Amino acid sequence: MSEKNITMPVNIDEQAEANQTRRSFLRKSVAVAGGAVIAATAAGRAAAEPLAIPPTNKILGRGVVSIPYGLPSKFEAHVVRRNVEWLTPDTIASISFTPLQDLEGIITPSGLHFERHHGGAVDIDPSTHRLVIHGLVEKPMIFTIEDLKRFPQKSGFWFLECPANGAMEWNGVQMDSVQFTHGMVSCTEWVGVSLLDLMKAVGVKKEATWFFGEGADGAALQRSVPLPGAKDQFGKPISDFDANTIYKDIIVAYAQNGEALRPENGYPIRLIVPGCEANMSVKWLRRIKFVDKPLVTYQETRHYTDGMKDGRFRQYTLVNETNSVVTFPCPDKKMSGKGSYEIRGLAWSGRGKVKAVDVSVDGGKTWKEAKLVDPVFSKCFTRFTMPWEWDGKEALVMSRAMDETGYVQPTLRQLIDERGTSGIYHKNSIQTWKVQANGEVHNVQLRSL
Amino acid sequence: MSEKNITMPVNIDEQAEANQTRRSFLRKSVAVAGGAVIAATAAGRAAAEPLAIPPTNKILGRGVVSIPYGLPSKFEAHVVRRNVEWLTPDTIASISFTPLQDLEGIITPSGLHFERHHGGAVDIDPSTHRLVIHGLVEKPMIFTIEDLKRFPQKSGFWFLECPANGAMEWNGVQMDSVQFTHGMVSCTEWVGVSLLDLMKAVGVKKEATWFFGEGADGAALQRSVPLPGAKDQFGKPISDFDANTIYKDIIVAYAQNGEALRPENGYPIRLIVPGCEANMSVKWLRRIKFVDKPLVTYQETRHYTDGMKDGRFRQYTLVNETNSVVTFPCPDKKMSGKGSYEIRGLAWSGRGKVKAVDVSVDGGKTWKEAKLVDPVFSKCFTRFTMPWEWDGKEALVMSRAMDETGYVQPTLRQLIDERGTSGIYHKNSIQTWKVQANGEVHNVQLRSL
Repeated sequence: MSEKNITMPVNIDEQAEANQTRRSFLRKSVAVAGGAVIAATAAGRAAAEPLAIPPTNKILGRGVVSIPYGLPSKFEAHVVRRNVEWLTPDTIASISFTPLQDLEGIITPSGLHFERHHGGAVDIDPSTHRLVIHGLVEKPMIFTIEDLKRFPQKSGFWFLECPANGAMEWNGVQMDSVQFTHGMVSCTEWVGVSLLDLMKAVGVKKEATWFFGEGADGAALQRSVPLPGAKDQFGKPISDFDANTIYKDIIVAYAQNGEALRPENGYPIRLIVPGCEANMSVKWLRRIKFVDKPLVTYQETRHYTDGMKDGRFRQYTLVNETNSVVTFPCPDKKMSGKGSYEIRGLAWSGRGKVKAVDVSVDGGKTWKEAKLVDPVFSKCFTRFTMPWEWDGKEALVMSRAMDETGYVQPTLRQLIDERGTSGIYHKNSIQTWKVQANGEVHNVQLRSL
Repeated sequence: MSEKNITMPVNIDEQAEANQTRRSFLRKSVAVAGGAVIAATAAGRAAAEPLAIPPTNKILGRGVVSIPYGLPSKFEAHVVRRNVEWLTPDTIASISFTPLQDLEGIITPSGLHFERHHGGAVDIDPSTHRLVIHGLVEKPMIFTIEDLKRFPQKSGFWFLECPANGAMEWNGVQMDSVQFTHGMVSCTEWVGVSLLDLMKAVGVKKEATWFFGEGADGAALQRSVPLPGAKDQFGKPISDFDANTIYKDIIVAYAQNGEALRPENGYPIRLIVPGCEANMSVKWLRRIKFVDKPLVTYQETRHYTDGMKDGRFRQYTLVNETNSVVTFPCPDKKMSGKGSYEIRGLAWSGRGKVKAVDVSVDGGKTWKEAKLVDPVFSKCFTRFTMPWEWDGKEALVMSRAMDETGYVQPTLRQLIDERGTSGIYHKNSIQTWKVQANGEVHNVQLRSL
């Protein structure tokens, strides 16, 4: 970034002159003048005295351990998970959305991780909780939490995404907020036991081509996960990627971002199935059963199937396809006058690493490759950035991600051409934000498709 | 891990037989029999029915957004920062310690990040907070928080360590807890603005060989940071590594593990000086002044200097040397009977990446190289693990880290030979835990030196 691009700060002498009305002055100077004037007014002036000593320099703050488990500042009270009141009849079988507009980096704080419950979140005593592993195994076993912690650890930075992320947009609902268009995804450092180690311990039989996890919550949520050789209930083989790849990464997780899982994320243990529909990562996990066909449960029929154009539904589309969204600017974070900015966003793919992200500010007429911020992990949030000198005129901002398999994030038109509009799940199309001359930002997804 | 090493689970049929007294049964079976018996009793039996349905399967839990900003389980209430009451006269100028025994992975949850305040923690309104950059610059400037967020982002996973970490051990205090021997260190994904970009914006003059940051808290904490060409107050050059390397990584951070900084970590902005004494990462940052010599402040004389054997003190020892500690087993987490375990710990270096960690279970007579868990980042926690089949006999467990510069973590004897025992800071010696036959674990640092 060159000096002339720095449009934001005001000179300290100006500050002294305009102390009482600084904020309006700053807005004016930025809006009218831009970076060149800042540099010009600042150049050649002597170093000025610093700001008056702030009041917090004159008081003592709170002591250590006055808050033994720390919390955010009172000035960040607006940064919370939110739900959409009309979306579900009750919050017990509902979803809350992560405020992506306020996230930086690639970690989602555990307190802001989206929630999806089918029977509410329970807080289970780990001293009495047990995990049963049974079915097509040589030695069915019961594990305590302490047992599981004695196994070798396996960890990773992985996103979890509800396959309903973006669902409201399919049929014309146009949420004017990135929290609600894309907030059913979060990213965490998960730690636990490799499923492979548990499979060795119980001696999984070779007839086993699926397993399912079941939760200890009111929904007793069950989801089938394929193993090598898996076929669906009609005898049709599951894709090689799904059958041969997914299970190798799976862990039974007991830690999330350094500490124990949060209750709403399955404390004391949950499955983590990296890259796949988050509901497969069964929370409050109480049993794993190895079987030779999928369960075809309520959650695999009534939910989590994809309506197609011909009126039929496809099943067991397990992997979250490549997706991305610009988190600044976005409807929740408007622009504060023309000048230098950094467009920022998140990209992710359930099939591996994000390879590239393109950004457009003209509604997709031209694209420019964004910078991917290190680290770039597989099946993890990848942060992308692109410098942007905004001229103060209307702009249409979009991002388009490609993963290491070569899959490119589609347009909504491409998705609808293939799948119609009867579906709910796996909407990973390119999102468009309209930046208005007044700095407001709006969701214009449907107009741009 | 082979099947015979799995000593923990009991067979489901045994579970059915011993339902009412399961926990005592499990302890007995593990203590008496070990893995081989589990495998033998389980082998050949038919798959049993799963456990009785737990009560949480029969209730509805809490709804989404009933806790908009999530918190840990009530069963994790013991996992908190703690202080040592006798250590300081008041908690306002004191320290709290991170519960390393409960951390997994490499992230420290922000709520458990250690605290060190010299005048208490303040919660500053970001809308009125300003950062002044002045001194030997072409254009002194005042930045709002929003201004700073418009600069390109720079982020990293970096540890912060108080140089007093381990200080109580120098002179014979032997804290029987890893939280208190090593808990003045934490690790975070930090996001902010590169100091290099801010230096370009204000036009730092070439006479500037140091800068200092100053906090907006009651202590108005100030620390000098060297730039290329830096000399100390006696005209002696600062080491090349410190002068030419440290400043390039520095950021003015506004985010921590995905969200805004926590108040006790400098909200709304702080310096992050990766790899260096954490007090240089000035919290509640209100100004940066570029100067041509170190400030030689209270915090650089009375505090944060190292007593040497000849009675003199060395100054501006800025970098946290290579360090490591075993976090399981440790005095806070005892063993639950002989059998298969994983020794786990954390290693870190202020000079770059951890290259290797050796572990000993016999008090340093023999060492074995531990596994480093991916990812291994520079100036970041590195998790190490080593499988351990514990025979139930007394053991002396130690870890010894080496970083990419070849520096090897010293023994306490080596440190004392060089520096005597009058110091407080930079105690990075090898820690020894004694595992007793009854499973208890104790700090025997002084006996083993």
